[in-house]
Amino acid sequence: MKEFFKVKTIDQALGYVNQFPRTKPERVSLMDSVGRILAEDIQSDIDLPDFPRSIMDGFAVRGSSTFGASEGNPAYLVVKGTVVMGDKPNISVGPGEAVRISTGGMLPADADSVVMIEHTEKIDDTTIEVYRSVAPGQNLIEVGEDIKKGEMILASGRKIRSQESGMLAALGIERVLVYKKPLIGIISTGDEVVGVEQSPGLGQIRDVNTYTLSGMIREIGATAIPFGIVRDDFEALLSKCTEAMAQCDMVLVSGGSSVGARDFTIDVIDALEGSEILFHGISISPGKPTILAKVRNKAFWGLPGHVVSAMVVFSRLVKPFIMEISGQSYSHRKKFRPIATLTRNLASAQGRVDYIRVRLRHENGILRAEPILGKSGLISTMAKADGLIEIDMNAEGLDEGSLVEVILV
Amino acid sequence: MKEFFKVKTIDQALGYVNQFPRTKPERVSLMDSVGRILAEDIQSDIDLPDFPRSIMDGFAVRGSSTFGASEGNPAYLVVKGTVVMGDKPNISVGPGEAVRISTGGMLPADADSVVMIEHTEKIDDTTIEVYRSVAPGQNLIEVGEDIKKGEMILASGRKIRSQESGMLAALGIERVLVYKKPLIGIISTGDEVVGVEQSPGLGQIRDVNTYTLSGMIREIGATAIPFGIVRDDFEALLSKCTEAMAQCDMVLVSGGSSVGARDFTIDVIDALEGSEILFHGISISPGKPTILAKVRNKAFWGLPGHVVSAMVVFSRLVKPFIMEISGQSYSHRKKFRPIATLTRNLASAQGRVDYIRVRLRHENGILRAEPILGKSGLISTMAKADGLIEIDMNAEGLDEGSLVEVILV
Repeated sequence: MKEFFKVKTIDQALGYVNQFPRTKPERVSLMDSVGRILAEDIQSDIDLPDFPRSIMDGFAVRGSSTFGASEGNPAYLVVKGTVVMGDKPNISVGPGEAVRISTGGMLPADADSVVMIEHTEKIDDTTIEVYRSVAPGQNLIEVGEDIKKGEMILASGRKIRSQESGMLAALGIERVLVYKKPLIGIISTGDEVVGVEQSPGLGQIRDVNTYTLSGMIREIGATAIPFGIVRDDFEALLSKCTEAMAQCDMVLVSGGSSVGARDFTIDVIDALEGSEILFHGISISPGKPTILAKVRNKAFWGLPGHVVSAMVVFSRLVKPFIMEISGQSYSHRKKFRPIATLTRNLASAQGRVDYIRVRLRHENGILRAEPILGKSGLISTMAKADGLIEIDMNAEGLDEGSLVEVILV
Repeated sequence: MKEFFKVKTIDQALGYVNQFPRTKPERVSLMDSVGRILAEDIQSDIDLPDFPRSIMDGFAVRGSSTFGASEGNPAYLVVKGTVVMGDKPNISVGPGEAVRISTGGMLPADADSVVMIEHTEKIDDTTIEVYRSVAPGQNLIEVGEDIKKGEMILASGRKIRSQESGMLAALGIERVLVYKKPLIGIISTGDEVVGVEQSPGLGQIRDVNTYTLSGMIREIGATAIPFGIVRDDFEALLSKCTEAMAQCDMVLVSGGSSVGARDFTIDVIDALEGSEILFHGISISPGKPTILAKVRNKAFWGLPGHVVSAMVVFSRLVKPFIMEISGQSYSHRKKFRPIATLTRNLASAQGRVDYIRVRLRHENGILRAEPILGKSGLISTMAKADGLIEIDMNAEGLDEGSLVEVILV
């Protein structure tokens, strides 16, 4: 007997996001760490820089030697030598003295600032005129000004972008502990579905979901493992699902949008050892007939077969689960989305969240979102779309001219 | 004698974007095509679907058989059989007749619509009651409704997202012609720069730019090839640049922000066969001392050494050039950026475009951009930043509360 499952809201569905463990950490080379998620806190064991560094080409001086200097009343300084790049200078700078220094050079002892070369003039080999005063600390980076010794600079769960990899490079961290990329298995089902390499007969269509889902999985930094197409047959589906669950951290079964096929998926979940259905049906459109089960400690998804529905459910629901097991805490992720002006009225049923495909275009400096209406089985509508907009559960629709947040797809 | 180069605006600098040829095309498997740029136009040689497809579980009927049907006055239809999924049905549907069909099934001959199972009731094995009328064409996808035979569906230069790969799958295109990923060489220069694996002595710093630039190159789908660190030595730099230019489609030399080091880069460019300096200096901050040369038909960049400057110049200038040789036309690319409210006044010098690092946060439903001020040598400021905002050349600054477009980094 089939259990009865109450349809969940998307927020209720997202409530299960913490039920699944993160992948194990692994060490990767710093060069391969961009896009990965840190699995350790990083504390700096050095001051960066650990010496005062000039940020200009010019002369290291004591600021006080230049106080009051101007075009009409220059300060005259004695040039004592030159800082060699990459070396600790063995000169010191006294009152009325200057030392040539390049950008990136280490300030000599007792110098507290750098006069830009543009504000000086050479009088002879050992004398310069200075036309502007500099304050102590000017035109240099102080010890620890970038990063202080002992500072916690990156927390576990942080996504490593280019700049984080640069910061780790500065600290000499050659290998970084990151969460393993989760392996996400994809199974397509349906007696009418054939492989891309096949010529579909009348009544058959090629497998699209394996490609759209693989692409979305890779885009978020996980690894997609396609398990091919399974016919609507309990034993075949059970065997393929068992195989996929053993190899992967999460499995997506797509298709089975007919009542009969959904029943198969439910039967297969029931037959998998240690399985529990968390929800069956979510109040979104498209994407209502979505199933999430926990099989031991892994997530097993039954996604709708229609390609747009599967993409919407992936984007709104599966993605947060994958990101969570990838080590990125769902609640801490930052989302910055473009805001656009809706070009027409949109009606919507209350009691469910509607996701509408939109095409974006700039028009007189305004970003406009033009709805693309079309059945959720039409892949061409997603290819035309730049993003999705959300119509709230309690709204009856949106008016032309409304400002909408766009979820780029 | 050094030539004199007038500082270029960023738009003038971008004007050189078409001077460099695209990479050669190559065929890749559809599964590996996501993120790549199409190098051919794709026309559909089939109708998709090529049969009328049900999008509901229910009964295929002639719409006219249901006209006027309601709860109080149902239509009675004779069930003639069941559509087998993936097969061409060999039944036809006459007036007053119905055939069981699942989502995705092919409509039998003479049926023009599908009644949802929810709007029917089984009376006996061969009779159903229908409570709602359906219009011809309802609850099905018509032949060619998704894609029409002969339709140009994707143009060369288009980026393949998940949905485009799905569309190609639907058409049976297993291998796709895409532009090769350009190979971008990176050379770090500076006597004070040491490798990440080394312990810098006083006056030395580790190489950061190789990591930040590699990360940014990979993020836009190109291949980064690091050539290591070269000391400030003409022969060594010339030899490394010659090697990199031979192996790569474009080369970035970073560092050399001191006057002397910049001179080296210029000398090396002059010494490279078939070289021409396109500009030296751009009116942006940070990032002014940027050099672009054309060496035969490849771009050779001299980037500022300060890490923030190098990242800003990469993001605003180098990236469009890489995308262009990757096959993505610069002028056709869509940019959709979040808009945020500035949290404080910002002053700016006229005559140059200023890029300010900002941290973004949501506050009472408003996205706020908080400037992160700091010298352009501080990598930690980029790690704190979510994006950059631009202050126009002709502006003296921006007021608190201004709406700013954020370039995510």
